[in-house]
Formats: sequence, C-alpha cells, structure tokens
Amino acid sequence: MIASDVVRLLKTSHKIALISHIMPDGDTLGSSLALALTLRQKGKEVVCLCSDPIPKSYAFLPGADVIRRPIHSDADITTVLAIDCSDRERLGDCNNIFSKATYTVNIDHHISNTSYAHYNMVDTTAAATAELIYQLIRLTGANIEKQVATCLYTGIVTDTGRFSYDNTTSVTHEIAGDLINCGVDTNWLNDELFNKRSLQRTRLLAKALDTIQVCGGGSIAFIKVDMAMLRAVGADDADCDGLVNYARDIDTAEVGLLFKEMDNGRIKVSLRSKNHVDVNAIAAKFNGGGHKKASGCTIAASMDEAIEMVLKELESIMKAAEV
Amino acid sequence: MIASDVVRLLKTSHKIALISHIMPDGDTLGSSLALALTLRQKGKEVVCLCSDPIPKSYAFLPGADVIRRPIHSDADITTVLAIDCSDRERLGDCNNIFSKATYTVNIDHHISNTSYAHYNMVDTTAAATAELIYQLIRLTGANIEKQVATCLYTGIVTDTGRFSYDNTTSVTHEIAGDLINCGVDTNWLNDELFNKRSLQRTRLLAKALDTIQVCGGGSIAFIKVDMAMLRAVGADDADCDGLVNYARDIDTAEVGLLFKEMDNGRIKVSLRSKNHVDVNAIAAKFNGGGHKKASGCTIAASMDEAIEMVLKELESIMKAAEV
Repeated sequence: MIASDVVRLLKTSHKIALISHIMPDGDTLGSSLALALTLRQKGKEVVCLCSDPIPKSYAFLPGADVIRRPIHSDADITTVLAIDCSDRERLGDCNNIFSKATYTVNIDHHISNTSYAHYNMVDTTAAATAELIYQLIRLTGANIEKQVATCLYTGIVTDTGRFSYDNTTSVTHEIAGDLINCGVDTNWLNDELFNKRSLQRTRLLAKALDTIQVCGGGSIAFIKVDMAMLRAVGADDADCDGLVNYARDIDTAEVGLLFKEMDNGRIKVSLRSKNHVDVNAIAAKFNGGGHKKASGCTIAASMDEAIEMVLKELESIMKAAEV
Repeated sequence: MIASDVVRLLKTSHKIALISHIMPDGDTLGSSLALALTLRQKGKEVVCLCSDPIPKSYAFLPGADVIRRPIHSDADITTVLAIDCSDRERLGDCNNIFSKATYTVNIDHHISNTSYAHYNMVDTTAAATAELIYQLIRLTGANIEKQVATCLYTGIVTDTGRFSYDNTTSVTHEIAGDLINCGVDTNWLNDELFNKRSLQRTRLLAKALDTIQVCGGGSIAFIKVDMAMLRAVGADDADCDGLVNYARDIDTAEVGLLFKEMDNGRIKVSLRSKNHVDVNAIAAKFNGGGHKKASGCTIAASMDEAIEMVLKELESIMKAAEV
C-alpha cells in the first residue's frame, strides 16, 4: 500500500519539504499545514513552501505565517512532498527543489494527476487532498489535535463547497465528523472561511450587483465591474472573487457571467453554468478554458464589445442545444 | 426506549397526521415529509398539516404540494405527531386536532421543549429533528429512498447552517454521509436551498448593501431598507431574509443590524452578533427578543429615530462590556 510506504519514508526522513501549488487554495494549504504540524510534533524539521503568496483569507490558518518561497539552500532537502499538485507545473518555483530531491512524493486527488514522483499517493475518489492527509496521519498513529483538525477541515470544506459538490462522499462526512470530535470550532472556522467580508468588498458587491442584467429569456445573467468601480470603493481584484456566482445564482439563469476590466484595459470574463451548457467551449473560442461548468477567458476589447462577443457565442450555442 | 414505543404506535395506527410548526422551516418540513413518505410506503394514510403557508423556497420538496391547513374532519384522526414543535403554541391552528387525538407524539430537538404529548421523543443533542426522524425510520427497518433522503438532508443542512453551527456533531455528519449513499443529489439540493436568488431579490441586495454603514470603530455595521426600495425593484418582505447577515459578516463587525421599514410605517430591527454581545438584551429594551446572537424588535418611530435609539443602547452596552 502506497500510504504505508509514504509513512515509512517520512519516519526515516529528518528534513522534509512540503510544497503547496501555485495560486494556493484551502486544500493545498490546509493539507500541507496539517502534515507539517504532525511531523514537527514527531521531531521532524519541516518547511512549507509555495511559489505564490498566501491569500490574506487563509492567513489565519495555524502555521500559515511560516509558509515561504523556496530559497537556494532548500535544494539540500532530500525528502520532498508535493501536496494537491496535479502536475509539475503546479509546483511553480518549487520545481527546482523537487527535481534535486532524493525521495519525492505526490499526494493528490485530481483526476488529471500525472504521477510525476517516486511515490504517487493519488486517489481521485477523495473529495480533497486533506482526506488523504487525514488517512496518512491516522496511519502514523499520531493524535489529531485541534490545530491539525482545523487545517484538515479547511481543506475538506473548501474543496467540497461546504459539502455540496458531487465529490462529497460518506467518507468525506465521516472524516469531517471525526475532525469535530478532535476539536474543530466549526462555527468560527466557517465564519473565517465563508462569512467574512471587508467593508470595501461589501461596497463593491453593492455596485457590481447594481449592474446585473439578464438576457436570453432570463437564461443568461451577467455582471460588469470596471476599474472606476474598484477605485470608488477602495477594493482590489481579489475582492471580485465569487462575484460571478451572484449572476449564476439568479433563479432563471443557466449561465452566469462576470465581465471584469483589468488594469491593462482588457476584459477578463468568468463563465459559470448550472447544468447542461459547456462554458468551457465558449471560453475556448476566446483562447480561454477551464471546466464544463466553470471557465474563463480574457478579451482585448472594450467592455461593451466583449459583452457583445461573448453573448453572441453563448446565445448561438444555447439556441443550438435547444434544437 | 421512547423511539421503539413510537414505532410500535405508528405500526398500529392507520390514519396519521403530522404537524409542522407555524412559520415552517426546512427542518419541520423536511422531517414531516420524510416520515410521511415512509409511512405511506407502508400503506398508512398520512396527512401533513401546517397552520401557515409553505414558503416558496421549500415548494420543491417532494410532497410539499399536499401539505395543507387543518380542516374540520381532521379531528377524527387518532394518531397525531408534532414535528419540530417546542411547545403547543407552535402548532398554531393545528392545536385543536392535537387536543382531540387519542395518541399524541412530540418529536423535537429544542432545549425549550415542554414535553406536551403522550409520547415525547425529545433529544436536545440532535442538531435537527431530521436526525431523530432518520433514527425512527431506520428503526422501522424501512429503506431510505432518494426522496426521503432529500427531505432529511434538507432538515439537517438548514438547521446546521450547512454543518457550521455548534450543534453539528459527528452523528450529524454520519447521517449526512448515509443520506448521500441513499441518493441525495447534494449539488442540486444545495443550489435549491442556498444558491437561488430571483432578479428582484438580487437587485434589492444591491440597493440594500449600498446603504451599509459602520460605527463604533467598525464594531457595528447596519443596513437600511425602506418601502420605496422594495417597490423600486419589485421585491417583497421575504426578499429581506438574510440581509442582516451581510452587516454581521463585515470583518470588523461584532454586531450587524438591519432596519427595515414595514408597510405600517414601523421599523423592524434585526440584530445579529458574532461572539460576546448579547443582542437579545438590546431587543428586550424595545419589547423584542430572540437569542443571544440573533434577535429582533419593532419600533414605532421614523427610520432615522429608530437607528439612533438602537445604536445608542448598543454602543452603551458595548462600551460597558469593554470596561
């Protein structure tokens, strides 16, 4: 069993590096921090690395403050684990360290994982990599303390959309239940993760929602955000995260769109669908991509032109699907 | 064991009435519908009753269309169960039927339950009455089919705030996991329950958030909604549900408030706190009430006067707490 091989490897390793993927999310950070805390309790020297900065929204996670970018001397670390990284590109600037390591481990749940390490602990039925880290920690026999449980729960609850996505299984719930028994304060943690909004972000939401329009007989809803709007409320690009969902969530809409002016004047388009429309196909027409239900692209045009171009493609695809 | 007594009673009953509480929510409706579906499968004649109309947002629940107000002839039903009702007042106009029944059952999880029936199956450690109904159904040996699982999951996910409130236990998660195995489409169901917003409601959200203000050094945030705003976007009172949370969720805020003009000109105030402030004490000053962290009151004054009155009380209590 690959998990016991990884446990054996970790037992004999003294200096260990854990790598989170570029543009880190709750699962890669929570998983890495949970494993780091556990290994440090066992006397291991562990560094948590990430090519990109940690989003402010995850700064509260125990240990998040010591996650750092790789430095030259990290190349001496012999045991290196990539956490929640589907391929080598996701390691970003940590690739060099991964290449030089004697033992490499790849712990992940993405279906696109390329099995790029010596030890590949990949389980695509897991809703989050945090599920695999949970199993690994249980296998070491270590106690799961409150801080570790908080990190693991974060990975699970963010990657499952609060237990709502199709990837959520009875195993996911079983682990979440055990983590509550280990002391997770779910009320506080869910507030930190989902119910926290700065005044600027709230004001941006007001301005953005005021632009909402529907077309295609209500089946398409879209929101516009320009730079002037961001400046007026003192918000930044990160405050636009999740805005597209307010378009998608319109009860009559099958597709929701966000058109966001970037500081270079181009228009970033976020596309979300509920059921049958493949928004990836639309994004691909504009050299973008993603998934069937969540996709994005960037268009070098004015706001109004970009809206016209995307709506035209979208309406023709949606009309064709009806036939 | 009370649960097996209830199962025995149901076995020998042929005509059964299930009563949901006034101002019905996801738990009272989901629990009642799940039990009704199960009992009907066993050949029982079951009616689901509720004194108040079913909110549009729960109309999608299997069987919701046949929940009805009590009628004269219901008084002949000998076995009557009150579902998720903490006291007799919560039965509303169904009280008469309850009084006349030969066998009455009270299935609930509220700490304030007054044990008002012949059989009182009350468990305050359950996060939702749906947990108790789940156990009851399992005890009957009945299969939990997709529709039943959907109703039970609805009760659990709404009463736990998507598994976030303190009442969520490992048992809650264990049951949720089993319900997924029974076929719940969590993606669809969470969309129905939490991610659906009419265009009118979305436009009201934009207007309401545009009024947001903070005071008390950021520790208090409040939102104003007047009748003109509702009319302008074609929204109604129900569209104001949840608005107060946008004030509460401001990152610096300990207390969030919504001031809502009613059609009689009075101001309805909703109060929410995050941690230490007892907003029930504030509401009580204006003859309102509720819980420590969620409370409400109605003030006969103009919008500006009401805001001034509530903020004055709130700031003095919050200042006193700091000393």
